[in-house]
Amino acid sequence: MNNARTGSVTNFDAWKHAYAARASNLSVSEVRALFAVVSRPEVVSLAGGMPDVSALDGALIEQAFESLMKNKRNFALQYGGGQGDLRLREQIQGIMAQDGINGSVEDIVITTGSQHGLELLADLFLDAGDVVLVEAPSYVGAVGIFRHKEAQIEHVFTDDEGISPVALAEAADALLAQGRKVKLLYLVPNFANPSGVTLSEARRPEVLKVCAERGILVVEDNPYGLLYFGEKPPKAMRSLDEDGVVYLGSFSKILSPGLRVGYVLAPPAIREKLVLANESAILSPATFAQMMVSEYLSIADWQGQIETYRRLYAKKRDAALEALEQYLPRVTTTRPDGGFFLWLTLPEGLNSKEMLPLAVNELVAYTPGTAFYGDGRGANNIRVCFSHPTAENVKIGIKRLSNVINLQLDLLDTFGNKA
Amino acid sequence: MNNARTGSVTNFDAWKHAYAARASNLSVSEVRALFAVVSRPEVVSLAGGMPDVSALDGALIEQAFESLMKNKRNFALQYGGGQGDLRLREQIQGIMAQDGINGSVEDIVITTGSQHGLELLADLFLDAGDVVLVEAPSYVGAVGIFRHKEAQIEHVFTDDEGISPVALAEAADALLAQGRKVKLLYLVPNFANPSGVTLSEARRPEVLKVCAERGILVVEDNPYGLLYFGEKPPKAMRSLDEDGVVYLGSFSKILSPGLRVGYVLAPPAIREKLVLANESAILSPATFAQMMVSEYLSIADWQGQIETYRRLYAKKRDAALEALEQYLPRVTTTRPDGGFFLWLTLPEGLNSKEMLPLAVNELVAYTPGTAFYGDGRGANNIRVCFSHPTAENVKIGIKRLSNVINLQLDLLDTFGNKA
Repeated sequence: MNNARTGSVTNFDAWKHAYAARASNLSVSEVRALFAVVSRPEVVSLAGGMPDVSALDGALIEQAFESLMKNKRNFALQYGGGQGDLRLREQIQGIMAQDGINGSVEDIVITTGSQHGLELLADLFLDAGDVVLVEAPSYVGAVGIFRHKEAQIEHVFTDDEGISPVALAEAADALLAQGRKVKLLYLVPNFANPSGVTLSEARRPEVLKVCAERGILVVEDNPYGLLYFGEKPPKAMRSLDEDGVVYLGSFSKILSPGLRVGYVLAPPAIREKLVLANESAILSPATFAQMMVSEYLSIADWQGQIETYRRLYAKKRDAALEALEQYLPRVTTTRPDGGFFLWLTLPEGLNSKEMLPLAVNELVAYTPGTAFYGDGRGANNIRVCFSHPTAENVKIGIKRLSNVINLQLDLLDTFGNKA
Repeated sequence: MNNARTGSVTNFDAWKHAYAARASNLSVSEVRALFAVVSRPEVVSLAGGMPDVSALDGALIEQAFESLMKNKRNFALQYGGGQGDLRLREQIQGIMAQDGINGSVEDIVITTGSQHGLELLADLFLDAGDVVLVEAPSYVGAVGIFRHKEAQIEHVFTDDEGISPVALAEAADALLAQGRKVKLLYLVPNFANPSGVTLSEARRPEVLKVCAERGILVVEDNPYGLLYFGEKPPKAMRSLDEDGVVYLGSFSKILSPGLRVGYVLAPPAIREKLVLANESAILSPATFAQMMVSEYLSIADWQGQIETYRRLYAKKRDAALEALEQYLPRVTTTRPDGGFFLWLTLPEGLNSKEMLPLAVNELVAYTPGTAFYGDGRGANNIRVCFSHPTAENVKIGIKRLSNVINLQLDLLDTFGNKA
């Protein structure tokens, strides 16, 4: 009798008549379904893009809390302003300066992770049917937001140097010629999620020019930029164009995603609207979490902590690449210089989504490539996230993955493509 | 040259062509403008609806943090699930039981304050032009969300027993006869923001019946229900109808708004969509804040803390009512049995919005009544929030307010209504 309340997907919905049009664009993400799998300790998860928070110095978190409770308790526990804590915004200025960005504290808005910054921005710009240009492949969480806003998502050709300015201009012009409103270009220029690719220095001004000429706003999402393993990536696109770029930053990868603190740097008129949208959606960003971040930045050697992360993730990337070479020579991979991800291309005929249950059976999880496209592509791709498991487990995970893939390849070699 | 970056409202906007239709419905709230005033220490603020967090036992917050860092550090700092922490949802079950609600943990979704629960819900249901029925007056933050969704906001006659079921049926039927889609009834049945009024026990099933018969979803927002000064308010509407009510709860008033932890209890099909919408908007609610709340609930005598709040706020309400009687005998007020607010009605001819600068000059702030209507009404009303200042300052604030009002009344008596 109470079946409807057990938490499984229900068939009966008394409110079906009442939903807004956009509600039909909410779908269960392929990444979400994996969270349940990830939580089983025997599974090596190369799936969710989680930082290795065990590498954080816990004593610093404790010191930040103590200082906060001692000096600012009643502010930290109270409502704050909709734009976010001023001191934290000043500290963010310093962080962004590392990417060559010179932005005013007045144009920074603190958000509930940079995801919510993107949500607010998409809500501000996208009517149903508007076009968003994205990399191929693109970040699954962005694709989800754009789909929820009923936007048309257009993937633009992307190679080892990032998104192609020539293909971008062609795609935009073709859509504009059809009378479509091309509103945004969304991209992750450094160590992209999911590909690991970095947009080359030469292409950055070219991409900006293509967009500026066509009135397309560039959304530069940069959660991984400080996590470089060798050379620093090129300067942020925002450093080259302050009126045409909205920049998204985050503390999720350099500190902790559990605090949900991100930020947006936007041209003044857009920033004003973002503050209003932020207030409308959540009243004010969490004061407590913002002040924890701010205290941490003021007492900790946070750049030293990032250096620790760089070394740690570089080691894990190396482990992943070595294991791929050893166990999966027929699979090609990107070779990122930072961040969390490898993007694998399987031999023709393999389907990463169909293969996933077999992989879980072998106690390894990954994200199928189709999650990163809005158009069904990516069936022979896999995103490998190497950031969360230990280097040893990254190797074990890839070995397990090879058991599945190599068996599939043997079958394919013997019986041919079933399709 | 850099004028555009000073943080003041800008005239130039290079992106004017690109905004979505809904963006034009974002406006600066009258409450927001007051935040700057509130922060001046010499001003007694009867404006923003802030709890008195100085009455919280700080040692318990510290114990909660220590326990969290010791036992669950790497979970608290990591991403979590989109529905929210299971243990906290179990604890919320117990809290809701105090309002007579029997809900499944599977149907609870943790949100970034209950404000974000309302935002997600409104986004799920409201197409442009849809109707939302609300109390007269209604919560300013809800009015803002509904306006942002381009909904039509209809205030329904409300008296000392809360919203009128007869007027509700009439309003709904008139709109339905016009072919309008009447999607939601939003109300704060206990110690309402801004009126302080409580919906009577007799009217609750009548309101539910009116809505059920017309396919209107009831959104019951209950942040103040546990903060009663005398008798407990009637059982939650959700306890009478589990399929027709979405219930919003919050830790902002019984613990801390700086943590931004609220929750939604919804029928299963709606809850599923809310989880997806939550994930799309913010990936996952802040694990750290959720676990802080959960630890606090498990180690603290949280019901004792609420009892402390009840006594404190009752004393402040008494101070406010006494001061009103003493200094403002020509102003009528509601006499709430709980919560944070009094709703004042000024004599005809006074305008609370125009009077506000004079009040600030006298070092007292309040929220003008127009903030709580979507249709311009409320010009001779004032919301007094007595929860945040000390009882002594509540009295001082109302005395200062009387200086302004009584001078205005003298002018009015002498020269007549300028209109």
